Amino acid sequence: MRHTRGVRKIHVIGIGAGDPDQLTLQAVRALRSTDVFFILDKGEVKADLTGLRRDMLDAHVEAGTYRVVEARDPERDRRAGGDAYSPAVGDWRSARADIYERLITEELGAEQTGAFLVWGDPSLYDSTLAILEEVLERGAVAFEYDVVPGISSVSALVARHRTGLNRVGRPVQITTGRRLAEGFPEGVDDVVVMLDAHQTFRKYADEDVDIYWGAYIGTPDEILVSGPIAEAAPRIERLRAEARERKGWIMDTYLLRRRPRD
Amino acid sequence: MRHTRGVRKIHVIGIGAGDPDQLTLQAVRALRSTDVFFILDKGEVKADLTGLRRDMLDAHVEAGTYRVVEARDPERDRRAGGDAYSPAVGDWRSARADIYERLITEELGAEQTGAFLVWGDPSLYDSTLAILEEVLERGAVAFEYDVVPGISSVSALVARHRTGLNRVGRPVQITTGRRLAEGFPEGVDDVVVMLDAHQTFRKYADEDVDIYWGAYIGTPDEILVSGPIAEAAPRIERLRAEARERKGWIMDTYLLRRRPRD
Repeated sequence: MRHTRGVRKIHVIGIGAGDPDQLTLQAVRALRSTDVFFILDKGEVKADLTGLRRDMLDAHVEAGTYRVVEARDPERDRRAGGDAYSPAVGDWRSARADIYERLITEELGAEQTGAFLVWGDPSLYDSTLAILEEVLERGAVAFEYDVVPGISSVSALVARHRTGLNRVGRPVQITTGRRLAEGFPEGVDDVVVMLDAHQTFRKYADEDVDIYWGAYIGTPDEILVSGPIAEAAPRIERLRAEARERKGWIMDTYLLRRRPRD
Repeated sequence: MRHTRGVRKIHVIGIGAGDPDQLTLQAVRALRSTDVFFILDKGEVKADLTGLRRDMLDAHVEAGTYRVVEARDPERDRRAGGDAYSPAVGDWRSARADIYERLITEELGAEQTGAFLVWGDPSLYDSTLAILEEVLERGAVAFEYDVVPGISSVSALVARHRTGLNRVGRPVQITTGRRLAEGFPEGVDDVVVMLDAHQTFRKYADEDVDIYWGAYIGTPDEILVSGPIAEAAPRIERLRAEARERKGWIMDTYLLRRRPRD
């Protein structure tokens, strides 16, 4: 990162999919150069995740060299569906930008470095970068920022299943449960699905598709299931419901792999 | 990894996209539990990459605790095109399986742990996992293996460009130059292209597409270019040719992002 005198610095640090050992050396270095960590809590059940981040700081950064500022992430209006999706996201992003702007302005001195810790990789289905750009565009506070890539839940998932994302010379698509509900993507046989609260894979139980599913990947609660969807789906449904009940929240993702037609 | 007595162990370790600090703590731990590193050299110009891997070992593993075995990777028949692609890959994979089988059988004791170091992430356009499965299927040597995910060149690319892979709620596809030559993928506006020796992005210079291109990402030779393809393409062509001439090889990748239609 360029270091201009008197300008606040921000690291956006990918901290991996849940296993604290998935931190990179670059991430550890960035943690150690940070004065103020901003931890945005979604409230209630996600307190586990806040605790995990605090454990990482305890493990890698000398006590007394940093501050942690916790803030409440605005709740996204998840009831909004269909066409309402984009505006709801827009409002939510704008509400987050207000919070980020205030955190950076009020909690970070002019010569200091702040950091946002992002699960997985900041490039995949995470809004931190877009929000920081929005804060910069507003012009109320100036800062420089860099991005430390992290192990995404996608990489962690397939590593645990010991399989690849793509097959030789073939593409892979990463998409959402909402999109998968509209149909199996065109032109690809390997599809990773994130943000799926509805187990949309069940829609493809009658097709020649294998699933590689995982929840809480890289943590002691990790659950992995793979096989033809028709066989794996009931098992995933049961394990998912049990785990969700037990922990109060679930983070899962999966790869769908269409078997070659002969 | 399960540790069964008397069975050889293999780590397949993603070592990041070129920046040695992209190693994860998990990868460092795996390096330190390895007795024999297998480094497959593609010969000539890629000696740089072998050197980088040796530097990582020097930096993180105590000297005298491991051996390095270098082998020559069989050259893939890159002249084969069109329908010949898959068989050529098959032959090449089989030739590699011969080598891997010999390395594991001859160089690794029954209680020892070997490791293959893979640039980027072992799940993306890398054949190590498929080759190990082929060796296991042949049944001549038994071993257990695990996969340590790494920072892919895809994550590293977008981190350096400080942009996301996907836009809100939208999919992203990862594909090859060969596929992109057949057409812009259906149903996606964000496409990452790997293994493109022919700068296929030029085909889309007349469309409303931005490119985020990078070569030697995370290394001192890193080059980044972004912008509308029409403007960026001539610059990329020139920089790419110069770098290739200077270093003798190039590793580059890029994201194509179609601008929203109003």
